[in-house]
Amino acid sequence: MQKTRLDTARIRAARRVIDPMFRDTPLYRCEALEPHLGCAVSVKLETANPVRSFKARGTEVVASRLADDGPRAVVCASAGNLGQALAWSGRCRQLDVTVVASRFATRTKLDRIRALDARLELVDGDHELARERAAVIAHRESIRLVEDSLDIETCEGAATIGLELVAAGPSFDAVLIALGGGALATGVGHVVKALAPEVEVICVQPLGAPALTYSWRQRRIVTTDSTDTIADGVAGRVPIPAVLDDLLVVADDAVLVHEASIIAGLRMLLDHAGLVVEPSAALGIAAILEDRDRFAGRHVATIVCGSNVDMDAYHRWVGAPIHTS
Amino acid sequence: MQKTRLDTARIRAARRVIDPMFRDTPLYRCEALEPHLGCAVSVKLETANPVRSFKARGTEVVASRLADDGPRAVVCASAGNLGQALAWSGRCRQLDVTVVASRFATRTKLDRIRALDARLELVDGDHELARERAAVIAHRESIRLVEDSLDIETCEGAATIGLELVAAGPSFDAVLIALGGGALATGVGHVVKALAPEVEVICVQPLGAPALTYSWRQRRIVTTDSTDTIADGVAGRVPIPAVLDDLLVVADDAVLVHEASIIAGLRMLLDHAGLVVEPSAALGIAAILEDRDRFAGRHVATIVCGSNVDMDAYHRWVGAPIHTS
Repeated sequence: MQKTRLDTARIRAARRVIDPMFRDTPLYRCEALEPHLGCAVSVKLETANPVRSFKARGTEVVASRLADDGPRAVVCASAGNLGQALAWSGRCRQLDVTVVASRFATRTKLDRIRALDARLELVDGDHELARERAAVIAHRESIRLVEDSLDIETCEGAATIGLELVAAGPSFDAVLIALGGGALATGVGHVVKALAPEVEVICVQPLGAPALTYSWRQRRIVTTDSTDTIADGVAGRVPIPAVLDDLLVVADDAVLVHEASIIAGLRMLLDHAGLVVEPSAALGIAAILEDRDRFAGRHVATIVCGSNVDMDAYHRWVGAPIHTS
Repeated sequence: MQKTRLDTARIRAARRVIDPMFRDTPLYRCEALEPHLGCAVSVKLETANPVRSFKARGTEVVASRLADDGPRAVVCASAGNLGQALAWSGRCRQLDVTVVASRFATRTKLDRIRALDARLELVDGDHELARERAAVIAHRESIRLVEDSLDIETCEGAATIGLELVAAGPSFDAVLIALGGGALATGVGHVVKALAPEVEVICVQPLGAPALTYSWRQRRIVTTDSTDTIADGVAGRVPIPAVLDDLLVVADDAVLVHEASIIAGLRMLLDHAGLVVEPSAALGIAAILEDRDRFAGRHVATIVCGSNVDMDAYHRWVGAPIHTS
C-alpha cells in the first residue's frame, strides 16, 4: 500500500489512551435488515457511549496528549459531534474547551456541548465559517486548534474502529463509511487497506454535500458554494488537501446518495434494527438501497457513527412515507 | 451472604462459553437523562446484539453445554426474547429448537423466532399455558426443556452482566433490574451481593404483573389470575419457588410501577438517550420516576434488557402525551 499520513503502530498506540468506554463497540449481524437490503449487513455501533458518536475516539487521543504536555486550552470548529466529544474528553482532564459552531447546527448537539461545560461560540454562517473562526481564536489566544480530519489524532482515533473491524474476523466484503471531513474514512480505510486489503472501502456522502467525493473522483480539490442535506455531520464544502491525498490511497470508491435514501435508511434502522441514528449514520444503508445489485449476496459492514439528532426533526423524517426522487 | 443456587466461579466459567458478541456490552453514564431524573444514571445496554436482548447470555450457556454432551433437541416457553435467543444459539450449534409462545405475544418477537429457523408453536392462552405446553412437548419427545429462571444456566448467563457491572469500577449506589421470571434479578443480584454488597439491588416489576414481587414481600409464593401490562417480557403469574428463595437472599427491595411510568420511561430513553427499548427495559427509569426522593443525588445503574418491540405499538406509546394515573 502507498503511504498515508497514518501509521498502524501509532493507531495501536492511540487505542491505548482512549477510555475503554469508547472502544470495542458492538459489532453484529443485523439479520432483520437483510431481507430489505438483499445482502448480509453487520452494524458497527458507535452511538452507545456518553457522547453518542465515534468522535470521542479522536478527542481522547487529542486530550490525553494535551494533558501530558500541551497547552491546557483547546478550540475546535464542529458541526456538533466533535465539539461534544472534545468537551467530554477535555472535562475529564481539566482542559479548557472552546467549540465554535454554526448557529444553524443541530440544537441538541449545541445543548450537549454547553452541558459538558465547554465554551460555545456560534457563528452566523455554515461549518466553513466556524472553521475560520476557530483558527482565529486559536491564533489570538495562543491555544491549541483541533482541526478535524487534518489533525492526525482525529484520524488515528477514528482508525481504531478499523482495528476492531479487522480483529472481528468475519471477512466482510465491503465496509461503508460516512464521508464528511474524512477522518473516519481515511482512518478506517488505512487500517482496512493495511490489514485486510481484500475488503472494499466505500465512502458515502450526500449528493447535497459532495465536495470531497468530487475531489476524490477528480483527484484534485473541488469545493462547493453551499450544502443542502439533512446529514449535518458531513456537510462540508472545503476539503483538506492532505486528507484527499490519503483518501486517494485508501478508498476504493466514493458514492453519493439522495436525501430520500438517507431518510429511508433512517427509517429502516429504526424499524428493523431498533436504532435511532442521525442522518450521517444512515449513509451506508442509503448506499445499499441505491445500488442493490452491487451488494447483492455480499457481506457489508456499516459504521453507525452517531445518534445525536433533534427528535422533532427525526420524527418528521421517519414519521411519514417519503417518495424517492 | 447466604447461599443461593448460584456460584460465582460457575458464573465466571459460564462467561467463557458465551459468544463475545453478547458480552462486555456498553455501560455508560447518560447525563442527558439526569436532569429529568435527579440522579446519576448509567445504562447497561443489552440490546446491541443479534437478538436485541440479554437472553442470549443464558442460551449460549445452555446451547454450548447441549452441543458438548446433551440431546440435540430443545424446547422452551417464551414471551419472545428467550425463544429468539435460544433459536440463535441453537442454530449456531445445529440444535433443533422448538419455542412455545402465547399467540398474543409481541408479533415481531414471533417473527424473529421463525426467521431464526426455530419451530414455533403458539398456544391460545398466556405465558403460563405456554410453559405447561413446553413441558408436555419435552416429556413426549424426550428432549431438553429449558425453563427460564429455573434452569441454572439461564441465571448464570444473566449473572455475567453482574460481573461486568462490578468490574466497571465506578461504585454505583444501586442497580435497577427488571423482574420477570427472576433469572436476571437473581443472577445479577447474586454477583452484586457477592462482590459489591454495598450496592443496593432493586427489582422492578409492573403493578400489572406483580406475582413475584408480592411473593418476595410475603416470603411465600403468591400467584395472580391474570396480568395487565405492556411489559410483555415480565408478565408472569406463577413464580418458581427456587427462584423466590434466591431472590429473598439477593434483593434489597422489589418495587412495582404504573404503566404510565413505564411509558414515560420509554419516552425518556428515546428523547434523551436515543434508545428504542421494549417496555421491560424501561422499568428501571419508571422506578426512579415514581420515587425521585429515594434516588436523589445517587448513582444508579439500570439494565436496558431488551428492544424487541412492535413499532406500531411503540409509536402509539411514545407518540402522544400520556397522563399518569
